[in-house]
Amino acid sequence: MKIKPLGDRAVLKPAKAEEVTKSGIVLPDTVDKEKPEQAEVVAVGSGEKIAKLGLKVGDQVLCSKYGGTEVKIDEVEYKVVSEDDILAVLEK
Amino acid sequence: MKIKPLGDRAVLKPAKAEEVTKSGIVLPDTVDKEKPEQAEVVAVGSGEKIAKLGLKVGDQVLCSKYGGTEVKIDEVEYKVVSEDDILAVLEK
Amino acid sequence: MKIKPLGDRAVLKPAKAEEVTKSGIVLPDTVDKEKPEQAEVVAVGSGEKIAKLGLKVGDQVLCSKYGGTEVKIDEVEYKVVSEDDILAVLEK
Amino acid sequence: MKIKPLGDRAVLKPAKAEEVTKSGIVLPDTVDKEKPEQAEVVAVGSGEKIAKLGLKVGDQVLCSKYGGTEVKIDEVEYKVVSEDDILAVLEK
Amino acid sequence: MKIKPLGDRAVLKPAKAEEVTKSGIVLPDTVDKEKPEQAEVVAVGSGEKIAKLGLKVGDQVLCSKYGGTEVKIDEVEYKVVSEDDILAVLEK
Amino acid sequence: MKIKPLGDRAVLKPAKAEEVTKSGIVLPDTVDKEKPEQAEVVAVGSGEKIAKLGLKVGDQVLCSKYGGTEVKIDEVEYKVVSEDDILAVLEK
Amino acid sequence: MKIKPLGDRAVLKPAKAEEVTKSGIVLPDTVDKEKPEQAEVVAVGSGEKIAKLGLKVGDQVLCSKYGGTEVKIDEVEYKVVSEDDILAVLEK
Repeated sequence: MKIKPLGDRAVLKPAKAEEVTKSGIVLPDTVDKEKPEQAEVVAVGSGEKIAKLGLKVGDQVLCSKYGGTEVKIDEVEYKVVSEDDILAVLEK
Repeated sequence: MKIKPLGDRAVLKPAKAEEVTKSGIVLPDTVDKEKPEQAEVVAVGSGEKIAKLGLKVGDQVLCSKYGGTEVKIDEVEYKVVSEDDILAVLEK
Repeated sequence: MKIKPLGDRAVLKPAKAEEVTKSGIVLPDTVDKEKPEQAEVVAVGSGEKIAKLGLKVGDQVLCSKYGGTEVKIDEVEYKVVSEDDILAVLEK
Repeated sequence: MKIKPLGDRAVLKPAKAEEVTKSGIVLPDTVDKEKPEQAEVVAVGSGEKIAKLGLKVGDQVLCSKYGGTEVKIDEVEYKVVSEDDILAVLEK
Repeated sequence: MKIKPLGDRAVLKPAKAEEVTKSGIVLPDTVDKEKPEQAEVVAVGSGEKIAKLGLKVGDQVLCSKYGGTEVKIDEVEYKVVSEDDILAVLEK
Repeated sequence: MKIKPLGDRAVLKPAKAEEVTKSGIVLPDTVDKEKPEQAEVVAVGSGEKIAKLGLKVGDQVLCSKYGGTEVKIDEVEYKVVSEDDILAVLEK
Repeated sequence: MKIKPLGDRAVLKPAKAEEVTKSGIVLPDTVDKEKPEQAEVVAVGSGEKIAKLGLKVGDQVLCSKYGGTEVKIDEVEYKVVSEDDILAVLEK
C-alpha cells in the first residue's frame, strides 16, 4: 500500500529523535504552533505550486510540526502536508 | 437514485472499519478536525480543480473525516466532499 | 408572480418530507450547518459560475439546508440560494 | 435632489407592507441577517458587476433587509445597496 | 497647505448640519457603522478604482460616517476616505 | 547606517509636535486605530504598488499613527510603513 | 548541514545584542507583535516574490521579531522567515 499525495501536497516520514540529534539540528521545544520538525520526503503531488519547490524523494526537510494529517501504513508513520507546511530543505 | 456531484466536488463511500484494518492503514483516533478517513470514489464533478487531481471512480482515497456532507441513499452512506478535502490516493 | 434569481443564484423549491422518503434518500438529522436538504430547481441565474454547473429547471438537487434566503409566493415556499450551496444533482 | 449610486451599487425604494401583501409574497419574519425585503430599483451604478445583472429602473427586487445604507430624501426612504445584496427580480 | 489623497482615496469636507437640512436629506440617527454622511469632494486620488467612479471636485456625496480618517487644516475639517466609503453622488 | 525599505514599504520620519502645529494641521487626539500622523518620506521601496503613488523623498505625508514598525538609528526615530499606511501627501 | 529555504522564504541569523548596539540602531523594547529585529541573510529561496526584493547573502536586514520559525544547527541559531517578514535592508 502506497500513498500518492494529491495536488500541492507531499507525503513525509518524520525523522526519529536520534536521527535529528545526529544531524546536529536542535529544534526548539516550544508549544508554539510554528514548532518545526525534521522529515523525509516520501512522495510529492503533481500540483503547480509544489512543483516550483523542486522537492525530490529522499530530501530531508524542515516542516511545521502541527501542520498536515498523520497516517500509519504497515506500522510506519507518515504525514500528508500541503506545500506551504514545508519550510526548508536540509543539505549535508 | 444516483448522486452527481457539482463543480469541484466528489461523492465518496466511506470504507468500513474492517476494510481499513485489512489494508494495513491505521488512522489516528483523535478528536482533531484534521482526522483522516479512508473512502472510495463513487463520482467526480466536472469542475476544473478536481479534474487536475486525476481521480477515478473506484480509487481508494484518504479524506478529511469532518469535511463534506453525509447522505444515505438506499441504505448506503455517502459523503459529498469538495476537492480540497481529498488528501491522497491509496495505491496497492 | 415569478422570481428570477440574479447572478450565480438559483431559486429552489424544497422537497416535502414524503417526497424525500419515497426517493430512498435519508438526510442526517443533525443540527450541523452542513445539514443537506433535497429541493427542485425552479429557476437558474445567468452568472458564469452557475452556468458551469449545467443545472436544468426540474432537477432534483441536494443543497445546504441553512444556506440561502426563504420566501413564500402564492402560498408556495421557495429558497434563493447561491451556486455554492448546491452540492449535487440527484438522478433516478 | 437625486441619488446616483457609485460603482456596483443601486438605489432602491423599499416596498410598503400593503404593496408586499398585494403581490402575494410572504417574507419570513425572522431576526436573521438573511431576512429578505421587497424593493423597487430607483437607480443603478455603472460598475461592471452590477451591469451583468441587467437590472432596470422600476424592477421589483428581493434584497437583503439588513444590507445597505438607509437615507431619506424629500420625505421618501431609500436604500443604497451593493449588487451582492440584490437576490432576485420579481416578475408578474 | 493642501492634502493630495493617495491611490484610491479622496479628501472630503463633511457638510454642516444646516446644509444637510436645506438639501432635504434626512440621514438616520443610528449608532450603526453604516450610518451615512453628506460631504463635498475636495480632492480625488489617482488610483484606478476611484477613477472609475468619475467623481469631480465639488460633487456632493453620501459616504460612510465612520469610514476614513479625520484631519483639520487651517481650522477646516476634512476626511481622507477610500473609494469604497463613498456610496453615491447627490444631484440637484 | 541607512535603512532601505523592501517591496511596497517606505521609511518615514515622524514630524515633531511643533512642526505639525506650524503647518496649520490639527490631528484629532483620539485613541482610534485610524489616528493620523504627519511624517516626512525618507526612503521608498521598489515595489509596484508604492511606485504608483509617486512619492518623493522629502514629501510630507499623512500616515496611520499605529501602522508600521518603529526603529531608532543614530538617535533619530523612523518608521517602516507599508504603502497602504500612507493616506495623503501634504502640499504647501 | 545547510538549510535551503523553500519558495518565498529566507534563512536569517539574528544579530547579537552587542552587534546591534555597535551599529547605532535602537530597536524599541515593546511586547508588540511588530517588534523588529536585526538579522543577517544566510540563504534566499527561489520564489518569485522574494526575488523581487533583491536580497543578497550577508545583507543586514530588519525583520519582524516574532515572525518565522527558529532552528539551531551546529550550535548556531537561525530563523526561517517568509519574505513578508523582512521589512528593510540596513546599509552602512
